Amino acid sequence: MANEFYNHITKFSDLSALDFRGVMAYFEPISLEKKGMLQIEGSVSPQKYFVVSGCLHMFFTDDQGVEKTVFFAMENWWIGDHLNFYKDSPSGFGIQAVETSEVLGISVANMNALLKEFPIMERYFRRVYEVGYGAALMRMKYIYDHSKEEIFIQFRKQFPEFVQRVPQYLLASFLGLTPEYLSKIRGKELS
Amino acid sequence: MANEFYNHITKFSDLSALDFRGVMAYFEPISLEKKGMLQIEGSVSPQKYFVVSGCLHMFFTDDQGVEKTVFFAMENWWIGDHLNFYKDSPSGFGIQAVETSEVLGISVANMNALLKEFPIMERYFRRVYEVGYGAALMRMKYIYDHSKEEIFIQFRKQFPEFVQRVPQYLLASFLGLTPEYLSKIRGKELS
Repeated sequence: MANEFYNHITKFSDLSALDFRGVMAYFEPISLEKKGMLQIEGSVSPQKYFVVSGCLHMFFTDDQGVEKTVFFAMENWWIGDHLNFYKDSPSGFGIQAVETSEVLGISVANMNALLKEFPIMERYFRRVYEVGYGAALMRMKYIYDHSKEEIFIQFRKQFPEFVQRVPQYLLASFLGLTPEYLSKIRGKELS
Repeated sequence: MANEFYNHITKFSDLSALDFRGVMAYFEPISLEKKGMLQIEGSVSPQKYFVVSGCLHMFFTDDQGVEKTVFFAMENWWIGDHLNFYKDSPSGFGIQAVETSEVLGISVANMNALLKEFPIMERYFRRVYEVGYGAALMRMKYIYDHSKEEIFIQFRKQFPEFVQRVPQYLLASFLGLTPEYLSKIRGKELS
């Protein structure tokens, strides 16, 4: 489980294999069944998670009781509520496995201790958040630039593996479409 | 102009006043009139900018020739195309001043040199992107959690200064509303 994480770190930051053993001591490996809940909405002390394998989604429940997905993470992505992590206040998001998944979790106390002991990891996290932030802004462009039908078609073209792996109702939620609408688009294509 | 930036850096990272002079050497101070263009869409080698004073927006032009705002930055915010910054590929976004503004610009070459000379700045940028990323995900929640009418009303409650300073048509674009729709909501409130 550790290998994938080490490879990801060394893409961005020079961390020795020896130091990596020290880094790993701050993480908790967690295995999840498909649909297993990693974090419930409103849980205090939310953690951040590195996805070693599988796929998870981050969601909230709206006033009508409908779960809405704001984020997906597959292998080599981080998932977590970055705003509430340091505040130690309840997270506004739940996190659930979409497939059988392996993740590495870290608490705020461990994150602070990790960065103190291994300041070289600042660079790694700087790049992780920079890419994630850039992608989030690009996603806004995506949503504003296309009609709802185009959003799905473009998205499938760009991320075919993603569309194959993720159930349709979650994908619809992520793209801001109703599942009925997505079925209609797909039906139209088949006819 | 430098003072505000130094205060912002030291909120997240221990940088000495002496080192700050070295850091500043990597930045170019830029003054902009209201509506002045800082970066045109498709420009190669996009920079990143720290906003010392004023307000700017980042936008793209859609197929119909309509400018759509994906991001605003006021004092102490960074603005830029984080995904295309390192690729040295054309930016998909333009950046324009909404008010008379003062910014500090940095190129990718200078950013790399800065982080090499002052690795302590990794921590600063790690926090900047972490907060920005968290806020971008929270914005998705916001958009999915409210009707279009509620989005505006909630947004105004949370960011009254923002709504005062930013022209209505830009605000409408940012919130994914048409200007006509926003006028209608405001009209309804007055009647």
